[in-house]
Amino acid sequence: MPSDTKPKLSHRAGMMPASPIRKLVPFADEAKKKGVKVYHLNIGQPDIPTPREFMDAVRNFGEKVLAYGHSQGIIEFRERLSEYYSRYDIELSPQEIVVTTGGSEAIIFAMMAVCEPEEEIIVPEPFYTNYNGFAVEAAVNLVPLTTYAETGFHLPDRKEIESKISSKTRAIIFCSPNNPTGTVFTKEELETLGELAVEHNLFLLSDEVYREFIYEGTHTSIMDISGIEDRAILLDSVSKRFSACGARIGCLASRNREVVETALRFGQARLCPPSIEQHGAMAALSLKEDYFRNMAGEYRRRRDTVYEALMQIPKTVCEKPSGAFYIMAKLPVDDIEVFSQWMLTDFRLHNETTMIAPGPGFYATPGRGKDEARLAYVLNVEDLKRAMKALAVGIEKYNSIR
Amino acid sequence: MPSDTKPKLSHRAGMMPASPIRKLVPFADEAKKKGVKVYHLNIGQPDIPTPREFMDAVRNFGEKVLAYGHSQGIIEFRERLSEYYSRYDIELSPQEIVVTTGGSEAIIFAMMAVCEPEEEIIVPEPFYTNYNGFAVEAAVNLVPLTTYAETGFHLPDRKEIESKISSKTRAIIFCSPNNPTGTVFTKEELETLGELAVEHNLFLLSDEVYREFIYEGTHTSIMDISGIEDRAILLDSVSKRFSACGARIGCLASRNREVVETALRFGQARLCPPSIEQHGAMAALSLKEDYFRNMAGEYRRRRDTVYEALMQIPKTVCEKPSGAFYIMAKLPVDDIEVFSQWMLTDFRLHNETTMIAPGPGFYATPGRGKDEARLAYVLNVEDLKRAMKALAVGIEKYNSIR
Repeated sequence: MPSDTKPKLSHRAGMMPASPIRKLVPFADEAKKKGVKVYHLNIGQPDIPTPREFMDAVRNFGEKVLAYGHSQGIIEFRERLSEYYSRYDIELSPQEIVVTTGGSEAIIFAMMAVCEPEEEIIVPEPFYTNYNGFAVEAAVNLVPLTTYAETGFHLPDRKEIESKISSKTRAIIFCSPNNPTGTVFTKEELETLGELAVEHNLFLLSDEVYREFIYEGTHTSIMDISGIEDRAILLDSVSKRFSACGARIGCLASRNREVVETALRFGQARLCPPSIEQHGAMAALSLKEDYFRNMAGEYRRRRDTVYEALMQIPKTVCEKPSGAFYIMAKLPVDDIEVFSQWMLTDFRLHNETTMIAPGPGFYATPGRGKDEARLAYVLNVEDLKRAMKALAVGIEKYNSIR
Repeated sequence: MPSDTKPKLSHRAGMMPASPIRKLVPFADEAKKKGVKVYHLNIGQPDIPTPREFMDAVRNFGEKVLAYGHSQGIIEFRERLSEYYSRYDIELSPQEIVVTTGGSEAIIFAMMAVCEPEEEIIVPEPFYTNYNGFAVEAAVNLVPLTTYAETGFHLPDRKEIESKISSKTRAIIFCSPNNPTGTVFTKEELETLGELAVEHNLFLLSDEVYREFIYEGTHTSIMDISGIEDRAILLDSVSKRFSACGARIGCLASRNREVVETALRFGQARLCPPSIEQHGAMAALSLKEDYFRNMAGEYRRRRDTVYEALMQIPKTVCEKPSGAFYIMAKLPVDDIEVFSQWMLTDFRLHNETTMIAPGPGFYATPGRGKDEARLAYVLNVEDLKRAMKALAVGIEKYNSIR
């Protein structure tokens, strides 16, 4: 009988990170209680209304019994997804697609499918913080590949990437357009990853949930790269595309049948993704180019607003990003975590303040990101202007009193 | 560079079981294509309409932006869940509840919270097959504790249970009312588990999704057992209770704060459970006793129909179960998997046949369950009579030609 009779949780329970983005929430709540207006640039929750098509389909859901659906996702929905991808010249059959409960589940299914516990996946950092959580759940080690504000957070050269590959590496996961940097990887960058994948027998896990959020140039999908058909795994979600984050509908797609069959077996264990929201997402897929063009136009104006305001803050380092709805910038403050909290607890401009996401949460390398922050431009242009003004004045004031 | 350049999936990908219940589906589809009526006793999909309250709430979902919800679940929903539990004299505060994406996610969160990869969880067999899948995903080893048709699938004596506990055991997971057996564990059985948990420093993971499906006696929750407040983890789901399997709404609850905080951190990684369906489930929680009484009355009639029909089949072994909507029975056939398939491919009674779930899929011990089947009584009484008639005639015919 063990001497310690208090029930003990697992090590991975202890390792599981709390959301670093939500860590500041109590301070924001406190400020709001005092009547302060807080501009949320800290979280990627779009303010764009969910399309009428989506909501109408939810309201018109007519089945009498909300029964289990197919573990792979409703077939009509997968057919529509297949059509949707073909608009981007991505040929994926409904059989090559597994609908998941959000992009989150697609990521964890992919990690578990390609990695044993203790094996490694390389990820360019800064990266979407929840990759950390999924890696702990899948008992996989993430190996960071640092990218820099000075070079627009693009990938380092081939040699540098290769130096991260060990005998335990099974995959590279990346996100383009990127969260948190907004960077869109070029076709050449993806081709380099493709060559490395072939040479070192790796999978490529490509998170493309911001596909339509492109303001210059074009988006390259992992599915556009030839010669890696059996190594490419596409991870996707309707959350941002249709401003439907609460729907929890995503998908995993691959031309490697074994990968799809494995994901499906993971999917069978949890029975099915949410049914009603699949109907909503299915209806939203009927939205065509002009919907995305309008949306991208609105976000481009927002990006320009935030970027121009950033350029007015002396010593800020930031290349103009061309995708997603985030900007990662190096700001002239000594400790971004202290500063972000101070903005909520001590600083007000006309009784308003701005909440940002501190950089370190997006890095796996200790000490990195200490003077960086992610700004999500998910507010209208007028609010963004006020938010950025507060940020600029805040930085000046913070530095003057230290 | 590895010599084998085909990308290799993980071992756990290979270990991940395909759903054994769905294995026969192609044969059923084939029969249906030929115009044969197939009675589905093979899957626990209730035919009862989802309550109007649930569907109305879905239709009236009025938010403009389907935004991320709280990772722990919508607070109003957790308050209603707390009220719901108090009706059963289970005192759980909203802070002690984490809303999950189906009962499935509650199970996997609990497994990951209490177990390291390679550690063990004991489970009475036969058991809900998807526990296997969750265990592979969590890299946990399930250790079966066999129960028998002859003793109504009740737990064996304390010594026998204790013999399964090793230095690697971290928990016992069980389901009462049970899927696949319908057995309701007595308060004494749960107390024995509680004593063993204290003595051997284990957690108890109690799957109570069939709480209201009780036809004799009363249900004992793990939360009713005193002295194990920090060891008890309740796993729950609205799927069966409100005939809302496609909603994917469940919860994990515990009085152990560390457990809840860990589950919440797992929950933060996947952001939130589906929003719209939480509103549906919240509305359904307003349904009171008479709803459950009517439902239980209907299922009791069905159980009696199936049980009486089973008793007419010579050499069947089965104690009358008092809960859930399943009966696990030992049938007079040599190989239930061959027989189940034959029923779909070769046997017809008035152009109808019956699909059952073969026993072996519910066991971890190889060779067990070869002459057992699970029957889910989720059809109306008239259909059940015809289904059971086909089964009885099928068994007779199958044995006569072998």
